[in-house]
Amino acid sequence: MNPRVNEISGSLIREMHARKRPSSMDLGLGEPSLLPNPQHFERAMRDVRERGVKYTPNAGDPELRHAIARHYRYPVMERVESVCVTVGSQEAMYVALKTLLDPARDELLVVEPAFPSYAKMAALEGVAVRSVAMHANDGFAFDGERIVAAVGARTRAVVLCSPCNPTARVITRDAAEVLTRALQRRGGEPVWLIHDEIYREQTFVDDAAQLAQLYPHTIVTNSLSKSNALTGLRLGWILGPAALIAEATKVHAWVTSCADTFAQRVALEIFQSGALREHAEWYRARRRELLAALDESGLHYVGPDGSFYVCVKLADGMNSVAAAHELIDRYDVIAIPGVAFGPALEGWLRLSWVAAPEVVRAGIGRIAQYCLPVSPPC
Amino acid sequence: MNPRVNEISGSLIREMHARKRPSSMDLGLGEPSLLPNPQHFERAMRDVRERGVKYTPNAGDPELRHAIARHYRYPVMERVESVCVTVGSQEAMYVALKTLLDPARDELLVVEPAFPSYAKMAALEGVAVRSVAMHANDGFAFDGERIVAAVGARTRAVVLCSPCNPTARVITRDAAEVLTRALQRRGGEPVWLIHDEIYREQTFVDDAAQLAQLYPHTIVTNSLSKSNALTGLRLGWILGPAALIAEATKVHAWVTSCADTFAQRVALEIFQSGALREHAEWYRARRRELLAALDESGLHYVGPDGSFYVCVKLADGMNSVAAAHELIDRYDVIAIPGVAFGPALEGWLRLSWVAAPEVVRAGIGRIAQYCLPVSPPC
Repeated sequence: MNPRVNEISGSLIREMHARKRPSSMDLGLGEPSLLPNPQHFERAMRDVRERGVKYTPNAGDPELRHAIARHYRYPVMERVESVCVTVGSQEAMYVALKTLLDPARDELLVVEPAFPSYAKMAALEGVAVRSVAMHANDGFAFDGERIVAAVGARTRAVVLCSPCNPTARVITRDAAEVLTRALQRRGGEPVWLIHDEIYREQTFVDDAAQLAQLYPHTIVTNSLSKSNALTGLRLGWILGPAALIAEATKVHAWVTSCADTFAQRVALEIFQSGALREHAEWYRARRRELLAALDESGLHYVGPDGSFYVCVKLADGMNSVAAAHELIDRYDVIAIPGVAFGPALEGWLRLSWVAAPEVVRAGIGRIAQYCLPVSPPC
Repeated sequence: MNPRVNEISGSLIREMHARKRPSSMDLGLGEPSLLPNPQHFERAMRDVRERGVKYTPNAGDPELRHAIARHYRYPVMERVESVCVTVGSQEAMYVALKTLLDPARDELLVVEPAFPSYAKMAALEGVAVRSVAMHANDGFAFDGERIVAAVGARTRAVVLCSPCNPTARVITRDAAEVLTRALQRRGGEPVWLIHDEIYREQTFVDDAAQLAQLYPHTIVTNSLSKSNALTGLRLGWILGPAALIAEATKVHAWVTSCADTFAQRVALEIFQSGALREHAEWYRARRRELLAALDESGLHYVGPDGSFYVCVKLADGMNSVAAAHELIDRYDVIAIPGVAFGPALEGWLRLSWVAAPEVVRAGIGRIAQYCLPVSPPC
C-alpha cells in the first residue's frame, strides 16, 4: 500500500460531525441548509431526453467554459482556454496543486488559519508544506507583508481562501497589492497564487480583492457548491492562464476524465441566467440575525466579512478540542475546534451560521452559557 | 511545474478523434451511441426539489453502496464497507492505483493490449510499470501462465480489463483459475488483481470469469458509463475488501470529496430497478450485424467475446498509425491504430461498433476496400 495514504490523519471536522445526534444544534456544517433552485435542472433534464449524457471534452463543455471566463473577465483568463471544469472545487484544488508543484523540489505555502485540505492534499502528493499564520491581534486579517516574508526559496505556490474558511475575513485591496507587488518584484521563477474563491458570492464588504485582477500568475478555484446550494453536484472550475490550464487539463483527464455532463448543463443554465448571486440576499439576512445574536450573547468574535462562518473566542486557556467535545456532551451543540485550521486558531471555535436561524441563535446562546459564567467574558 | 505532468504524452486515440469531419464514419468512438433511459432520472429530480443536492459521505450514499455490494455479491465484498462510489471508473482506477502502490518501491503490471490510461496514471504517480502482452497467435486470449510469469519481485498489482478494451476477449474461468491459484501459491505480500469490469454488461460468451469470485486480493472497478449509456454521468465504483476500501476512500475524499449526489440517485434507481442490463439485447443485435458485415468483408478479425470493440488485422507489414491516418484521408473512416494499446497490437486496428448499424457496415466495407485489393487478404 501507498504509505502516504496510510499516514493521512483523520479529519477533526468529521470527528465532530460523527458525534452529532438528531437533537444536536449543528453549527459545524459547511453546507448551505437552503434548497437549490430546481429550475436550473429543467434544461439539463430536457437534454438527457434529447441528447443523452455523453462525455464532454476533458476540460469541459466549451460553451460553459466560455460563460465562466466571460463572467469573471480576469486579465489573462478571459478565453475558453482559461477554464478547466472540475469535479467541485476539491478536484480543482487537487489538480492545481498537482500541476504546479514538483514533489522533488517545490514547497507549498499555506496561509493559516486554513481549511485543512490544502496541506493534506500536498501531503498525499509528497509535496513539502510550510505555513504562515495571520494574527488574532489583527482579527486574522490577511497581512500581505507577513505572507511575502514567509515565501522561501523553494516556495512555488501560495494558497489562500478569501472570503476565508474559517476566519470569514477577506483579503483587502491594500493587502492584495502589498502581496502581489512584492511577488512581482522578486524576479526569477514566478511564485503562483492559488486563490480559493469558493465563498465569493458570500462577500459582505466592499473592499474584497480578487488576486487574479492584480497578478498574472494566479490560479482561481471555485464551484457552485456554496453560491447555489449545490454542494452535492460536484461542479467546480479552475481559472488560469491558458498554458497552465492546458497542463492542468492533462491531470484532470487522468484523474476523472471530465466533470458530469448533466451538472455542466445545470452550471451553464446558472451562468447564462445570471443566477450566481440568487442566494445573496438570504445570506445577508442571516448574517444580520447572526450579528444580533452574537452581540446579545456577549461572546467575543471576529466580524465576518464573508463566507458563512464566524470565529468566536473561548475563555482564556481553554483548549478548543476539549471545549468542542464538552459543548456536544453538555449542550448538544456542534462547533469546530479552531485548532483544526492550524495552531493560530487554538482557543477559538469556528461556527457556521447556515442552519435554521432559530438553531443558530439558540446554539450561540448555549455557547455563551458554556463560556461566560465560569470566567471573565470570553 | 510538476515535470511528470509535462512528460505525459498526448493520446493517440484523441489525435484520431480530433481529425474527425462531420461526414466521417466513426468507428473510433468508445461511447454508446444509444440514449439512456430518462426514467432513471425522475426520482433524482424529485429529490432535488424535496431535499436539494447535498454532499453524501465520502464513500457514497450508504443505500447505493449497499445496493452495489448486494448486486455483485463477490466474496469478501458483500457489505456497504466494500464499496466506494467514485467519479466514473476513471477515478475508480486512479484511486485504486494510488491507494495500492508505493511509488518508492512498487510496480504495476499491465496486461496488454490495454487501454493506455493505466500506464499513464501510473506514470503521473511516479509508479514503475511493466507490461505483459497476450499473443496475436492466440487471438490475444488471456493467458494465466504468461501473466504470472511476468510478475516480478516488485509487482504489487496486476491490472486487466475483461471484457477487454481493445481486444474484446474475456478472461475464461480456466485462465482465471491458473492466474489466481498461482498468485495464491506465491506467499509473501499479496499481489493485487485490479479487474476493470466496465464492459461486464457487454459479455457475449458463457465462460467469462470474475476474478473477485476466485481471489480475495481483488479490486473491481466499474461504472454506469457503458452498461446504461451514461458516459457523461461520471458514476463509478470500487469494490474491494473493507480495509482496502477504507484507505481508498481517504484518497477519493482528498481528490474529489464525493461523487455527484444527483448521479448517485440515478445509480440507485438503476440498481434497485434491476436495469443494469437494459441495453444488453441492443448490443447482442448490433454484434450479430457486425459479425455478418465482417464475414462479408473478408477482413481477418478477433471474434468479440465482449465489450463493443473488434480488432481487425491490417495487411502484413502495414503500420497501424499510418493506416489509420490514410483511412481518414482517403476513406473518411475513423479507426484507432492498434499500437495505441501497446506494441502487441501493432498491425491491427481497433474498431468500435456502437455507431448506427449502417455506419458500421459501410465503414467496415471501406476498411476492406483499403486493405484487401492491394495485397493478400489482411
